[in-house]
Amino acid sequence: MVQVGIIGAGRIGRVHVESICTQVPEAQVKLLADPFMTEETAQWAKNMGVKAVTKDYKEILADPEIDAVLICSSTDTHSQISVEAIEAGKHVFCEKPIDHDIDKIKNVMDALEKHPVKYQVGFNRRFDHNFEAVQEAVASGKIGEPHVIKITSRDPEPPCAEYVKVSGGMFLDMTIHDFDMVRFLAGCNAEEIYVEAAVLVDPAIGEAGDVDTAVITLKMENGSIAVIDNSRKAVYGYDQRAEVFGSAGMAATGNDTASAAVISNAQGVTGEKPLHFFLERYMGAYVKEMKCFINAIVNDTETPLGVKDGLEPVRMGLAAKKSLEEHRPVKISEITV
Amino acid sequence: MVQVGIIGAGRIGRVHVESICTQVPEAQVKLLADPFMTEETAQWAKNMGVKAVTKDYKEILADPEIDAVLICSSTDTHSQISVEAIEAGKHVFCEKPIDHDIDKIKNVMDALEKHPVKYQVGFNRRFDHNFEAVQEAVASGKIGEPHVIKITSRDPEPPCAEYVKVSGGMFLDMTIHDFDMVRFLAGCNAEEIYVEAAVLVDPAIGEAGDVDTAVITLKMENGSIAVIDNSRKAVYGYDQRAEVFGSAGMAATGNDTASAAVISNAQGVTGEKPLHFFLERYMGAYVKEMKCFINAIVNDTETPLGVKDGLEPVRMGLAAKKSLEEHRPVKISEITV
Amino acid sequence: MVQVGIIGAGRIGRVHVESICTQVPEAQVKLLADPFMTEETAQWAKNMGVKAVTKDYKEILADPEIDAVLICSSTDTHSQISVEAIEAGKHVFCEKPIDHDIDKIKNVMDALEKHPVKYQVGFNRRFDHNFEAVQEAVASGKIGEPHVIKITSRDPEPPCAEYVKVSGGMFLDMTIHDFDMVRFLAGCNAEEIYVEAAVLVDPAIGEAGDVDTAVITLKMENGSIAVIDNSRKAVYGYDQRAEVFGSAGMAATGNDTASAAVISNAQGVTGEKPLHFFLERYMGAYVKEMKCFINAIVNDTETPLGVKDGLEPVRMGLAAKKSLEEHRPVKISEITV
Amino acid sequence: MVQVGIIGAGRIGRVHVESICTQVPEAQVKLLADPFMTEETAQWAKNMGVKAVTKDYKEILADPEIDAVLICSSTDTHSQISVEAIEAGKHVFCEKPIDHDIDKIKNVMDALEKHPVKYQVGFNRRFDHNFEAVQEAVASGKIGEPHVIKITSRDPEPPCAEYVKVSGGMFLDMTIHDFDMVRFLAGCNAEEIYVEAAVLVDPAIGEAGDVDTAVITLKMENGSIAVIDNSRKAVYGYDQRAEVFGSAGMAATGNDTASAAVISNAQGVTGEKPLHFFLERYMGAYVKEMKCFINAIVNDTETPLGVKDGLEPVRMGLAAKKSLEEHRPVKISEITV
Repeated sequence: MVQVGIIGAGRIGRVHVESICTQVPEAQVKLLADPFMTEETAQWAKNMGVKAVTKDYKEILADPEIDAVLICSSTDTHSQISVEAIEAGKHVFCEKPIDHDIDKIKNVMDALEKHPVKYQVGFNRRFDHNFEAVQEAVASGKIGEPHVIKITSRDPEPPCAEYVKVSGGMFLDMTIHDFDMVRFLAGCNAEEIYVEAAVLVDPAIGEAGDVDTAVITLKMENGSIAVIDNSRKAVYGYDQRAEVFGSAGMAATGNDTASAAVISNAQGVTGEKPLHFFLERYMGAYVKEMKCFINAIVNDTETPLGVKDGLEPVRMGLAAKKSLEEHRPVKISEITV
Repeated sequence: MVQVGIIGAGRIGRVHVESICTQVPEAQVKLLADPFMTEETAQWAKNMGVKAVTKDYKEILADPEIDAVLICSSTDTHSQISVEAIEAGKHVFCEKPIDHDIDKIKNVMDALEKHPVKYQVGFNRRFDHNFEAVQEAVASGKIGEPHVIKITSRDPEPPCAEYVKVSGGMFLDMTIHDFDMVRFLAGCNAEEIYVEAAVLVDPAIGEAGDVDTAVITLKMENGSIAVIDNSRKAVYGYDQRAEVFGSAGMAATGNDTASAAVISNAQGVTGEKPLHFFLERYMGAYVKEMKCFINAIVNDTETPLGVKDGLEPVRMGLAAKKSLEEHRPVKISEITV
Repeated sequence: MVQVGIIGAGRIGRVHVESICTQVPEAQVKLLADPFMTEETAQWAKNMGVKAVTKDYKEILADPEIDAVLICSSTDTHSQISVEAIEAGKHVFCEKPIDHDIDKIKNVMDALEKHPVKYQVGFNRRFDHNFEAVQEAVASGKIGEPHVIKITSRDPEPPCAEYVKVSGGMFLDMTIHDFDMVRFLAGCNAEEIYVEAAVLVDPAIGEAGDVDTAVITLKMENGSIAVIDNSRKAVYGYDQRAEVFGSAGMAATGNDTASAAVISNAQGVTGEKPLHFFLERYMGAYVKEMKCFINAIVNDTETPLGVKDGLEPVRMGLAAKKSLEEHRPVKISEITV
Repeated sequence: MVQVGIIGAGRIGRVHVESICTQVPEAQVKLLADPFMTEETAQWAKNMGVKAVTKDYKEILADPEIDAVLICSSTDTHSQISVEAIEAGKHVFCEKPIDHDIDKIKNVMDALEKHPVKYQVGFNRRFDHNFEAVQEAVASGKIGEPHVIKITSRDPEPPCAEYVKVSGGMFLDMTIHDFDMVRFLAGCNAEEIYVEAAVLVDPAIGEAGDVDTAVITLKMENGSIAVIDNSRKAVYGYDQRAEVFGSAGMAATGNDTASAAVISNAQGVTGEKPLHFFLERYMGAYVKEMKCFINAIVNDTETPLGVKDGLEPVRMGLAAKKSLEEHRPVKISEITV
């Protein structure tokens, strides 16, 4: 039984508590830490089967019975706590992104070289049943050599301008998932990036210095071309699609819906909207990524997403920002590590 | 060049005029006859390329240059004119049904034995691209042995009660197409029929002695079971689907739409309704059946749908009426020929 | 916390153990009984969080701390254990069917009159997200008055002939779910039934006295007509669809798939098969029916499916057998209660 | 009756002969000219209803009874013959592109100023039922303000390298249709373009100095962002899709298929590939553009696609080439008129 400590009891921390308590029989949540731990959260955690709660995450690091740590705290703490946990000999699952600063990610890499524990980054979409099926089709050669990779990623609601200011911007906060997906589907890194972006959804986002709509072109190392289109607001819900076109065919996936029911009437033939947002669409993926992390610990195998998989999307995000600022294609290698 | 005479300038007669004039280069409409021929119709026909018009169909039968006759007059005249045309040595294309009276169809069969001209019945749906594709899948063995055949056939609007009184009833007027389709898809005749029917669309139809909604079960000679569901009114348009389930798979088809466009918004994901009615859905099928008829003449081959294919659906329709009246399964053989 | 005892640790008993232990926080499995309880099963149960196991289900009935009993034993024991549990004052969830013998179901009804505990029958498909969405569309009037109800229900693999002999036959073992679904979608009982059936899948099923393919027509009390088509073997997987056609439109649902991925290549455009069988397709429905049962206990409300909902599908199944034997439409009222 | 002369009896010239002879009753083909007019072509034309043929297109320009000229000759002659026909007072339908050289298009514009005849450019895709439906949804405000426009355009087979050398390259030969489509769907011109392209299909295309795969990003004048992805070879057929995402929803369309038939078997659920190539997919669009041209003459209204609509896509194509060569975003205004 893998003993787990979870740092952060916000939305995503709770998702992992629930996954482990109900779907991962090989693991147990021994301690849940959050500086703002409330009575209500403590009670909820207890009901879920969490053994104990605390306000101080250092208790988790200090507990010799805890094997693995999940870092679900605010982004600015990810790299620092990663290093501390690694140095404490804990296996680490870290929510994305590790950091917006390449140097801080390098600190984590350095720590991992000295203390080779398991390290997994939380790019949950790789574990989504639809994207997995597309990736398997590509990796197994069913569509031949990939030529064009297309990702559509649109949120149902824009974040508030406050959040935009601290999030690192759309490329590091939202597109970072798509950067990871491009690498996953292409099976290689990006070489160059070009961004066309605009403020079309909410002027407040523009005033906060960010964009809310973008089309991003990438030249991949295997010669294929990728394109991501992003919007902060799709009125019909969370739109998450991918398509890989290759020399021998195409693999594509659309969205999931709450049901397959369709109504035909005088207005047309109407099916359901995509599932509303990431908690609905990716719940199965969150469970699966956690099972993979625990499996890697139990069987002493590689995690499916190591620290380098955490680094590359951040480089791509920083290159995207540079492309937008300088209005030119930017080599990923310009973002030095 | 096959010279054609067309008897009847109503809706379906005009469909055939248009098909031949624009899409069948091997044929020419030499004469169009209609007892109610108007100046307007005559002008329309001339513009389409019809050589001459008349009020008297006997002129068509008497014209030695005319090779083939299309019978598009009212149903009660089909068998009589068929016999006359056959005896005049003309090839005959006869709109469905040949007659509601088995004996009158036998007169046509007798005439054909003496004068073996080409004879084709107008079950146009066999030439629809969707049903053709399903039938080809079945006939080529792609789904193995057929087990269950399902046909959905719903009109967008009920006929007026006046029409219902003279039409022979829903089974002989509307379902007759589905009886033909069942034979086409199963590749054999029906043995037995059971009808469950009701008046749910329009009480006036019930007062006229007919039904407007039905589920019809058929035992086929090859052991498969078929089911047809009919309604006189589908608010979303003309609903024409088929499905054949067999030992090695299933072949199915849905409806055609005016476009493949889909709108996603806060209400859902909406595509177009089925094409409104038979003139829209089956225009391509009308052209194709005419090409097949002309080809059979030009190449001296069998027509795809002979007089026996005109007989069987009428027997099935009469058996359906008997099943409804006597509330029991009825053998098709009870309708003696 | 509702204390639950589960009788039967077979496939479906384990499904409920898992649902309660992982997804129903208001309930706890206190005791799991199975006459063939193995060490392995006991260990599995313990890992899942079951408090204790036994070979004797009477221990469950005798335990005053147990509030509710789930009857997942073989069909022939359902009614007898139902009566015992009701008399012991336990709330009862009973797998379908309660019994094939109407008199034995009446015994359960009598017991419930004397001891009005909660009683729920395991027609899980009502809780499937797809069928729920169709039923909600019908019940909310979105399609107007229902006219034609169609259910397709095909298993991926036929049962062995041994099972067929004891199962009560296809209508009571397999179609019974569809009989319930017809009542659920129509919102009323059936009046009359007509069966057309055949042995097309496996001659051994015929030798065992059963059929494996059927088309079943039902006249419903609200005037609508329903049709069910069944097969014991669909090579493409578990085919579970429904369609309700009404005066104002149609609500329909297809199958669920493992993913939305689609491959386009020179052979065509190919999506995934339906989910393989009931454990895959209905896992969410099993969880939901259990939540509803526990909720009814916690909130002292009606269960969504009472003993009468267990009775009617059995009557329909017996009427179906009679229709097949006597080759005629049979009134449900001929199966007297 | 509009008398038409057609210059060029190649593939597209024959398409227009057929459209006019069978589907446009208000027009007649008086003369068909082709320098390589064969006996066979002459016979075919006669059978279609063409009055006469010639090897010298000047006969068409000189014939005072001819009202309108269709220019279907090789691209390098389009602008010159346009000017000649305009100066001869003929209405002109010119296949795309008018020319690859902006100055030559300006010659046509100058001629039109002096002789204001009707002039229509052959961007047939605007008349496709699917793209029309998407454009109508956008233009009628159903999706709000457009934010992102996506076009997928892939041919089933690459051209031979010989053709590539004279075609002006992929952007002027193939993408030019997509440049027109972007303007049609956005309802405005492009401001800036960025091209990412590669040779992935056929090295011979690269040796001929062209690319065969591209992702092209466009900044539109209304602030929206457009992206086109092109490939010279999709093994599953002609892939022609569009999607417009806006503030109030999304309108999208997929491909047409030969039938709606779907086969379900142990391998999956398979529908038909897209229609093979442009003659199949756009046959209806070719007819419709011709009807619109003839209507504009008959009713003395504007043609739906004037000379400026012929100019802009060429500018976009030239800007695309520049972007690829100089590896930077290029303003359309850099291509001066």
